[in-house]
Amino acid sequence: MELSEAFEWRYATKKFDPTKKVDESFVKKIVDAAWLAPTSSGLQPFELFVITNQELKEKFVSASFGQNMPAECSHLLVFAAWDNYTIERIRSVFDYTAKERNQPADRYDAYIERLKAIFFNRPAQANFEHAARQAYIAMGFAMAQAATLKVDSVPMEGFSPDEVDGILQLKDKGLKSVLLLPLGYRDESGDWLLPQKKVRRPINEFLTEIA
Amino acid sequence: MELSEAFEWRYATKKFDPTKKVDESFVKKIVDAAWLAPTSSGLQPFELFVITNQELKEKFVSASFGQNMPAECSHLLVFAAWDNYTIERIRSVFDYTAKERNQPADRYDAYIERLKAIFFNRPAQANFEHAARQAYIAMGFAMAQAATLKVDSVPMEGFSPDEVDGILQLKDKGLKSVLLLPLGYRDESGDWLLPQKKVRRPINEFLTEIA
Repeated sequence: MELSEAFEWRYATKKFDPTKKVDESFVKKIVDAAWLAPTSSGLQPFELFVITNQELKEKFVSASFGQNMPAECSHLLVFAAWDNYTIERIRSVFDYTAKERNQPADRYDAYIERLKAIFFNRPAQANFEHAARQAYIAMGFAMAQAATLKVDSVPMEGFSPDEVDGILQLKDKGLKSVLLLPLGYRDESGDWLLPQKKVRRPINEFLTEIA
Repeated sequence: MELSEAFEWRYATKKFDPTKKVDESFVKKIVDAAWLAPTSSGLQPFELFVITNQELKEKFVSASFGQNMPAECSHLLVFAAWDNYTIERIRSVFDYTAKERNQPADRYDAYIERLKAIFFNRPAQANFEHAARQAYIAMGFAMAQAATLKVDSVPMEGFSPDEVDGILQLKDKGLKSVLLLPLGYRDESGDWLLPQKKVRRPINEFLTEIA
């Protein structure tokens, strides 16, 4: 499907058909979309969890205040952002980048110094917020890719990060959950949102053109 | 172009060819992608500015620490988030939604009460951060749409929000700039980043599958 059509077609799926599973080749494309998304300084300061284990998926229902999408979906994606920027994390990314590009090991030293001046002069919370924002771009890419494949999804912020961090033992990894993205196929007859008109703010309140 | 190819094709364009302009029909598709992007509770808590005025675009060069992409691009997109959630803003969205869906005017009253309990019990800064995150999804959609049309773009966080807010007089509108997205066409020979290999973190460090 053309992307512009896919953006009209998609909606925040509230009820998935639990009998329908997403083909792994499609899941790979959706994961790749998130992986290829741009991030600030190319740091990719988050990780992606793809959960198909039913017992585990069901634990996300109470963590998301009783919402059933995590249990009924085919694949549950969890975006978890770095809790802070550290020199080890930054070095690891740029060492790898220099290697992949056949560049000298010190190629990014000056750039890293500039990042240090930004990241290491503000609280961990500000760095986490910055990392979390990057995950939203990746989720956007993943949702766009899913829609062109006619795979349904629902972006979810409505969950307890502490509970999800506990379920996936994220704290020990220096991660904090920021987004859930269940993937699957809509329950055509059971989803209350599906028949409702997609509404967006009037375009003239949203858009200002300055020529 | 297929979306999965488009994600490989795109890169953060550092030098645009200032003689090449993006067709308005393409710009409309890119703006629509941002407009159609999902947001928390459907509030769309940000606005989009599309700037083609050359004199104005040039003011963004010093505001982005000397980077020339805002001046050399064809269309400069600026995403500006609500500085806070207010009852007027929330009511306006749900009044409009109810009208568009032919629903009773009080259809969303209970839902609005739930939002008030969240938004009005935390500092304005937390609400702004939340609104800003939503703009990142929309930018993701816009970049994805641009890439399928072979329109280049570069997501920019590296600018002074205060300066940009001043240029566009955002404070009076209760907005704060969060992202710039210049659109245009790459300068094939002049862009230092173009020939460099696209590098992403090793997929096994990024992705965890739990089956």
